[in-house]
Amino acid sequence: MNPDILKERKNATFDVEKLTYILDGGPEKTKRRREIESMVLSDPDFKEENPCFLSRSERYDQAVRKSAQMILKLREYGIADPEEIYCYKNIYRGHQNEAFGLHFAMFLPTLYNQCDPQQARKWIPLAESFQVLGTYAQTELGHGTHLRGLETTATYDPATQDFVLNSPTISSIKWWPGGLGKTSNHAIVLAQLYTQGNCHGLHAFITPLRDMKTHEPLPGVVVGDIGPKFGFNEVDNGYLKLENIRIPRENMLMKYAKVEPDGTYVKPPSAKLTYGTMVFIRSMIVGESARALSKACTIAIRYSSVRHQSEIRPGEPEPQILDYQTQQYKLFPLLAMSYAFHFVGQYMKETYLRISGDINEGDFSKLPELHALSAGLKAFTTWETNSGIEVCRMSCGGHGYSCSSALPDIYVQFTPTCTYEGENTVMMLQTARYLVKSYRQAKAGQQLSGIVSYLNEAQHRRVQPQPVAARPTVVDINDLASLVEVYKLRAAILVELAAKSIQQELQRRKSQEDAWNNSAIDLVRASDAHCHYVVVKLFTDKLRDIGDTGVHSVLSSLALLYALQGVTRNSGDFLQAGLLSVPQVLQSSVRIKELLSQLRLNAVALVDAFDHNDKKLNSVLGRYDGNVYENLFEWARNSPLNATEVHESFHKYLKPLRAKL
Amino acid sequence: MNPDILKERKNATFDVEKLTYILDGGPEKTKRRREIESMVLSDPDFKEENPCFLSRSERYDQAVRKSAQMILKLREYGIADPEEIYCYKNIYRGHQNEAFGLHFAMFLPTLYNQCDPQQARKWIPLAESFQVLGTYAQTELGHGTHLRGLETTATYDPATQDFVLNSPTISSIKWWPGGLGKTSNHAIVLAQLYTQGNCHGLHAFITPLRDMKTHEPLPGVVVGDIGPKFGFNEVDNGYLKLENIRIPRENMLMKYAKVEPDGTYVKPPSAKLTYGTMVFIRSMIVGESARALSKACTIAIRYSSVRHQSEIRPGEPEPQILDYQTQQYKLFPLLAMSYAFHFVGQYMKETYLRISGDINEGDFSKLPELHALSAGLKAFTTWETNSGIEVCRMSCGGHGYSCSSALPDIYVQFTPTCTYEGENTVMMLQTARYLVKSYRQAKAGQQLSGIVSYLNEAQHRRVQPQPVAARPTVVDINDLASLVEVYKLRAAILVELAAKSIQQELQRRKSQEDAWNNSAIDLVRASDAHCHYVVVKLFTDKLRDIGDTGVHSVLSSLALLYALQGVTRNSGDFLQAGLLSVPQVLQSSVRIKELLSQLRLNAVALVDAFDHNDKKLNSVLGRYDGNVYENLFEWARNSPLNATEVHESFHKYLKPLRAKL
Repeated sequence: MNPDILKERKNATFDVEKLTYILDGGPEKTKRRREIESMVLSDPDFKEENPCFLSRSERYDQAVRKSAQMILKLREYGIADPEEIYCYKNIYRGHQNEAFGLHFAMFLPTLYNQCDPQQARKWIPLAESFQVLGTYAQTELGHGTHLRGLETTATYDPATQDFVLNSPTISSIKWWPGGLGKTSNHAIVLAQLYTQGNCHGLHAFITPLRDMKTHEPLPGVVVGDIGPKFGFNEVDNGYLKLENIRIPRENMLMKYAKVEPDGTYVKPPSAKLTYGTMVFIRSMIVGESARALSKACTIAIRYSSVRHQSEIRPGEPEPQILDYQTQQYKLFPLLAMSYAFHFVGQYMKETYLRISGDINEGDFSKLPELHALSAGLKAFTTWETNSGIEVCRMSCGGHGYSCSSALPDIYVQFTPTCTYEGENTVMMLQTARYLVKSYRQAKAGQQLSGIVSYLNEAQHRRVQPQPVAARPTVVDINDLASLVEVYKLRAAILVELAAKSIQQELQRRKSQEDAWNNSAIDLVRASDAHCHYVVVKLFTDKLRDIGDTGVHSVLSSLALLYALQGVTRNSGDFLQAGLLSVPQVLQSSVRIKELLSQLRLNAVALVDAFDHNDKKLNSVLGRYDGNVYENLFEWARNSPLNATEVHESFHKYLKPLRAKL
Repeated sequence: MNPDILKERKNATFDVEKLTYILDGGPEKTKRRREIESMVLSDPDFKEENPCFLSRSERYDQAVRKSAQMILKLREYGIADPEEIYCYKNIYRGHQNEAFGLHFAMFLPTLYNQCDPQQARKWIPLAESFQVLGTYAQTELGHGTHLRGLETTATYDPATQDFVLNSPTISSIKWWPGGLGKTSNHAIVLAQLYTQGNCHGLHAFITPLRDMKTHEPLPGVVVGDIGPKFGFNEVDNGYLKLENIRIPRENMLMKYAKVEPDGTYVKPPSAKLTYGTMVFIRSMIVGESARALSKACTIAIRYSSVRHQSEIRPGEPEPQILDYQTQQYKLFPLLAMSYAFHFVGQYMKETYLRISGDINEGDFSKLPELHALSAGLKAFTTWETNSGIEVCRMSCGGHGYSCSSALPDIYVQFTPTCTYEGENTVMMLQTARYLVKSYRQAKAGQQLSGIVSYLNEAQHRRVQPQPVAARPTVVDINDLASLVEVYKLRAAILVELAAKSIQQELQRRKSQEDAWNNSAIDLVRASDAHCHYVVVKLFTDKLRDIGDTGVHSVLSSLALLYALQGVTRNSGDFLQAGLLSVPQVLQSSVRIKELLSQLRLNAVALVDAFDHNDKKLNSVLGRYDGNVYENLFEWARNSPLNATEVHESFHKYLKPLRAKL
């Protein structure tokens, strides 16, 4: 063990293990998680080549091998609980992605939810035994977010009782689905349904892509890999061009909408039924943000405790870089953010479960709020995490650029969350739509409930943008409850500003739609403030549940740091609205510095509590034992370029060059 | 040509070609640049494999081939002017890096500057004919910024008149130098010089690494590649462990310091002599920021003009995504920033040339200011560009993640500039040191000149952090000169705040050094505000030189957008100091929206003016003709995973899996 990091652990003022229990949701869960982790990590069948050193084809090959392995192992160990499977996958994947990801996340769930009983009997056993390996083909080369714009057609032919699936244009080629390029032999294809001369919008069709024996693409199916990407290179995201291929009528998923043999279209009873999965995935992404950021913080903070550089006091030894105020200012607010997002993720999961219970009993009333919250928080947390990971990487100096740090892998694996499952700006605008609607309802006298109930309060309507300090709101910047209050007022004011911007545009005789677009900057800002308020509030609420004094104290400091850093980063908003006075903003900066040096003592312990196993973290800089340099050297020696002392390019180019000069 | 992008070009209100001339520095320079570009692009010898589809070893191989080719071609075409070589390299490299980069950028210049006449006669011809291929080995595994901390030793042995070079610890292994791993047969090694029992600090030693015939490492030289990185994977950044190897006394570079045959050390006459190269490279990086950001903007804006998505008005066709206010708000401030940084880059280059003229005549007086300016602007422009490239990438939706967009390559090639040639936070603190020193001089009654002369002005000392609007400064937010003024005052106030923070720490009996560290957040903020002021000022100054009305008008809008966006992003600073009133901040937001819709018309023309050749840009999304989709499909089909219809992993893992279930 590196002596610096040992010293850090000795200095900690709280019990790390207790905090880990809180993060996991109880000591039993921690225990079970560790059991599962050690099952995977001690299993020689999961031994793998370091993906950093592999070509793309080798990476894909390894991902398929590991996914196949995982399926057998889950059966062998009898792991079936979804949460335990999730934990299992987390550990065996590392910073890579699963080869069969969409089979599990989209293909199977869609079959479960949208097959009629006869279809279920046929397809589910095939899919569960991996005879049928599937993906979910929705987005097209020219179409993403806007589902109505999708061009793929499924035209019913009553003569043969077939659907004819076709990609009529280049822009209609299916593009991006994971596992589509090489792995899957079937896809659920989303296509515009035409029957009896009418278009009935998007429907889902089980479409065979490859021969079940030879795995060769079927006639009329043009399928392949879309090429290398920024991350996800072990996954064969694919393209699919359908050239008037025919599938039987029974391949349309018919639990809700139907096409009769004669071509008669039968409408689904409700449109809300497919809404839930999307909300679920977005809610889960909030937790993923916390996880990714906590990994990056673990690496950067451990490394900062063993790295010595420059000097603070001349003549003294080089200090740990964690002693520099600028380094603390980069990393500790991100550490606080990791905890904040973790607790928000827990809240989202619980809320989802609670509300899905209601939905199963036919009560959809809470769905719009959850939908709005999951959209905005997905965007808010992924954007913050995305830039936060890069701050962590760059805080490690040169070595942060090396794949040995794992930070490049963490970044490229995470960054797509800003775009997939709902592009972030679009997500923010969806939340804004809900906020503006709620604001208008409140203004019309309706009593709002739930998280937007703050829009009820008449109070904020007196808080107008106006000269700061004309009306100093009494706020104690050391008191979290008081800070939650100003975040709430800020959100209320920015929602109001956005709503008023729309109003002004309408008064200039703009259409409803142009008024919306011309206020979009304000709307995103309002959503952002709303989400920020929710995060500060949920972090503060969480503190109430924590009994242990040591843990409570350090988490309180983190929550305060998170809230105050948001204040200084957005001080214009708070000043503009008169929610804080200039001295209060200045005090916040001073208080932040105090919190940084307070947290300095516990920084390593706080990342230890995330309990990221070394093998899972796969980072030389983030090793638990802090023995960075010897292991960096060891890692580098395995670089494929070192397989020979003299690279062939010497003989091919350098010798001939010299001869010519 | 895609009809949308054609329409954009027709709507432009200024002459694109004229703006290109301004960017290049005159029509003659544009002409010559294009000649050189077409020389490379039409040369079949530079035909290359798309690096996206290559393994790391193949990428390195191709980089060596191209570098060797380039050397022959430059001779063949007789290109010798440094600026023309720079242009040539820019085009032939694309988004990749040169295999011999450090031979040109560091090895040769160091020989030119630090060889004594006898050494020059021996080494320069060898290096110029590439018999000796070299790199510059300074940083070590455990040591970067802080040169005094380097551990490699060079101990003089008068008995044999040799230096013994040694890496005494793991952390002393040389780490990161480009071309060190496999390419170079020599390195200039920086080591602590010991002679006659005393250490004389860092000196430079020409160190043979590999056998000149076989290219095998010499005895005692442990050299290799440091492994895959986030970008730069065509470069063999290397490690070097020296195990008491001996080099003759004459291999120490002796133009300034010397070791006599008997071991007597002779001091160099001045320490400032090696200062210049560093300042030069940092100044050049400002221009590199502009170039990288302008490439990313070109791709994102062209793509946004041909991409249609969602709907603004129901029933109407999907609009170009460039019509969304949020998209404009992401991209146009970055477009403005590209122009701003371009002009700052021009200024830095000119200033460097002017001041090096002075230095050559023995006048070092302007060097500290240039040093401070290049450090801060290097950090300011690279940080802004770094996050700006990612905003551009994410603004392209899913396709921004594909390597076909080139955006991932542009990012990973650019991001190391935040760390190399001076880690950005360290750079900001260097500038801060100069600012605080200047502030103290001004306070002591000294009259400052140059860019910090604003610290002279007594005026700002009355501007204290205080309730906003208590003293509304008269500012016209539509007037650039007036905005330059408030940026200047903001910088002055933040420098003062930082200086006062140090003062307060000292009064609390902190040492000078701890006081500095405890004020580091404020110091970085002051530097940032100083650099921001310089950028706004230089952009504004540049407008005066522009005669053409159309170009002047559109650049003025960009400059105003750049300045106002900075105001809203940092509104807390301006409000806090009473430099702007709340209504002015609100007006700024409204004005920004107006500027966005004004610039909408010229956005494509403004990126066309950067004149990035399609082949150089190598981006399917950023194609000049806008024909994105058909070319994306074409590109994807070349993905190596598509070489066969059925990947071997099917036979290896999927078939056996099915059999087992």
